[in-house]
Amino acid sequence: MKLSLAVLALTLSSALSFTIPSNAAHRRTVNSDTSMTTQLQATTGVARNKNFAKLAGGYLFPEIGRRRNAYLEQNPSANIISLGIGDTTQPIPSAILKGLVDGAAALGTQDGYSGYGAEQGKADLREKISEVLYNGLIDPSEVFVSDGAKCDIQRIQNMFGPDVTSAVQDPSYPVYVDTSVMMGQTQQLDEAKGQYDGIVYMECNEANGFYPDVAASPRADVVYICSPNNPTGVAATRAQLEETVKVCKERGSILVFDAAYAPFIRSSDVPKSIFEIEGAKDCAIEVNSFSKYAGFTGVRLGWTVVPEGLKFSDGTPVRQDFNRVMTTSFNGASNIVQAGGLACLSPAGMKEIETLIDYYLENAGILRKTFIDLGYNVYGGTDAPYIFVSLNGKSSWDTFSEILEKAEVVTIPGAGFGPGGEGFLRLSAFAPREGVIEACERLKKAMA
Amino acid sequence: MKLSLAVLALTLSSALSFTIPSNAAHRRTVNSDTSMTTQLQATTGVARNKNFAKLAGGYLFPEIGRRRNAYLEQNPSANIISLGIGDTTQPIPSAILKGLVDGAAALGTQDGYSGYGAEQGKADLREKISEVLYNGLIDPSEVFVSDGAKCDIQRIQNMFGPDVTSAVQDPSYPVYVDTSVMMGQTQQLDEAKGQYDGIVYMECNEANGFYPDVAASPRADVVYICSPNNPTGVAATRAQLEETVKVCKERGSILVFDAAYAPFIRSSDVPKSIFEIEGAKDCAIEVNSFSKYAGFTGVRLGWTVVPEGLKFSDGTPVRQDFNRVMTTSFNGASNIVQAGGLACLSPAGMKEIETLIDYYLENAGILRKTFIDLGYNVYGGTDAPYIFVSLNGKSSWDTFSEILEKAEVVTIPGAGFGPGGEGFLRLSAFAPREGVIEACERLKKAMA
Repeated sequence: MKLSLAVLALTLSSALSFTIPSNAAHRRTVNSDTSMTTQLQATTGVARNKNFAKLAGGYLFPEIGRRRNAYLEQNPSANIISLGIGDTTQPIPSAILKGLVDGAAALGTQDGYSGYGAEQGKADLREKISEVLYNGLIDPSEVFVSDGAKCDIQRIQNMFGPDVTSAVQDPSYPVYVDTSVMMGQTQQLDEAKGQYDGIVYMECNEANGFYPDVAASPRADVVYICSPNNPTGVAATRAQLEETVKVCKERGSILVFDAAYAPFIRSSDVPKSIFEIEGAKDCAIEVNSFSKYAGFTGVRLGWTVVPEGLKFSDGTPVRQDFNRVMTTSFNGASNIVQAGGLACLSPAGMKEIETLIDYYLENAGILRKTFIDLGYNVYGGTDAPYIFVSLNGKSSWDTFSEILEKAEVVTIPGAGFGPGGEGFLRLSAFAPREGVIEACERLKKAMA
Repeated sequence: MKLSLAVLALTLSSALSFTIPSNAAHRRTVNSDTSMTTQLQATTGVARNKNFAKLAGGYLFPEIGRRRNAYLEQNPSANIISLGIGDTTQPIPSAILKGLVDGAAALGTQDGYSGYGAEQGKADLREKISEVLYNGLIDPSEVFVSDGAKCDIQRIQNMFGPDVTSAVQDPSYPVYVDTSVMMGQTQQLDEAKGQYDGIVYMECNEANGFYPDVAASPRADVVYICSPNNPTGVAATRAQLEETVKVCKERGSILVFDAAYAPFIRSSDVPKSIFEIEGAKDCAIEVNSFSKYAGFTGVRLGWTVVPEGLKFSDGTPVRQDFNRVMTTSFNGASNIVQAGGLACLSPAGMKEIETLIDYYLENAGILRKTFIDLGYNVYGGTDAPYIFVSLNGKSSWDTFSEILEKAEVVTIPGAGFGPGGEGFLRLSAFAPREGVIEACERLKKAMA
């Protein structure tokens, strides 16, 4: 197979002029280049970014994948069910799919072809997000369409730069901390604590309902709050968010609100956007995504809302600097994908999304019941696609390994989300129903 | 229209549970929020990233768009032809289109659905890039698939961090300089020179054939070279690249080679990849893109090659840190778009690309001939989709305005690419043929 591809490549490169010729003289030299001397020569004089040296281990989710694959290598016949990484599994429903397919097909016609769009996103998509999802609470000019929330968090960090201080919920989605470290906002990792010096960790635990006491935490320039929360699955109440906005305004902090799971909220009077809280436009940015409820994890579409009036201490609008990041170091979300986003926000698309959310929330309910029946304390899963299980003092990485071996189910150890997650396990409801049911049967045996 | 959308939103939000309710109490308060007192309250205590304050003006291409739109507002009946931003205009041909459409359609089936892929790109696409485009000169594990070269340059900068020094060709694609400034690698702009202190500007001019004398320039940690060059359209010769690799290796610099226009090279023995140069794997990273020759400017697909053996001065593999950036702050290129990339690298797709390149190069030839006939010195356009016209001492922004007004043709002033571009105009061959012909007729009259 490899050989035939190589032969094809050689054939093509002689027929076509734009590939690299096959007679590049140094090919063999480079390929056989394993001598110690040459390896030393390959070390450049460029110092490694000192902030990268501070990072502990790899990024969490690839590490989970690595452990899963290691198990599979040792047990090739294993039938693993993944309730680990929050990755959608259900096909994209028809109205949304039609948006994507038509968006692609249009590029084959002169009238439908489009090249670079506005880096901030298509005007009609920004308008639809504002009107349909936010009910006009924000202006389309405050919406920046992107290839996803994770990427936007990095771009937000690029905007803030190295000199801000950041506060995170502990446990939390690891991207907030890792990008803060990479940007140079922190000192070294305190290995005993498992925390980076310079980051404010706001404790979330069973006693405080997994929502931090922001007022009792040291002030930080930037406060990251995710609700419904990843990993705990708990959605912040209106009163909690009102208090957080009040504290951020008093302290002059900027709140980065990650609402990627908001559409899963089913409880009444739980805000789906930080901008439902009075005064939030004076202190908050909201990061959001189509990934989890439209099945777009691999398709890539998200957005960030930066209110027009939000300003840095020197009076510079935050939106102006975020716009500079978006235009200078991003080139817009794929035009095909944005067409899919428009289809999501059509009446038919929204009904399909509702059905998908119902499906995953039913999965979450099955997982909840299983662990409750087993006698565990379980959080989340009613307003979010994650459930967070208290392990009664057991190590979360040990339990992760035990469940992988005994039940062949992949979960995520709470400790992967920060030291505050130790003693908990996150399970994702993103899985086919039959997988969830089978996983629960196995878990009942393994954890009984 | 706006009203009916709002009504639709209200209707939907009462039927569906995942949007924001329309009764958010503070809506009117926020919308009417224009008092001076409240505006002062909206100023946070977060200091603006000091590096953003250093940036002169906005990013170049939106500024061109702004001036074009300002002209259109004053002259609503104007029939503007754009030879400005290098944006593809021809529909995506059938075999490549089929890859995109099928890639989208597959997501509607259980078997074809995919969520998160590897952040580094699909294994089969990385392998095809290695084998078909590089003829095996690089390993698939050295290829990182992305949403485009511009975005990758930012991610490369995130990896390098604030403490490196950077060298750029002058003139050059503005993203190298702007992202260096945003990362904090520079001091202030020297307004008289139009250059940032701390950046090494390597002069490119008619006398040196628009390729810099790297050895005569001060050493920098990171050296950005773009060939075929944007904006000059000149492709570096093998001897020039060999000399640059030699100098970078001697100095321990890392060469970031931007090959986004490489497939346009028609001259023989002009390298299409830096890895055709012996020793380049010891010092170079290559940034690349499907944008310009597959019509993917809006579709978004590119890649970066980081050789396995390339190391920072402490011995850390550069690939390891770039992998950390890609996994932590990126989530992979869209699965639909990657399916399109695979179609590009099929035999049928490659023939279609060849045809597209021929089309744009013929446009470049028409533009070249027009300016040569008018008596101008013209560069580029034979191995690149850009031509670079010497204005015989005239200001490039003045000429840009003059041509916009007299010929209603949008170009790009050379000065937009750095002070070394003053006195030149860049014209893009990315346009429909009839537009190019009509533009040339108008230019003949306007510039005669």
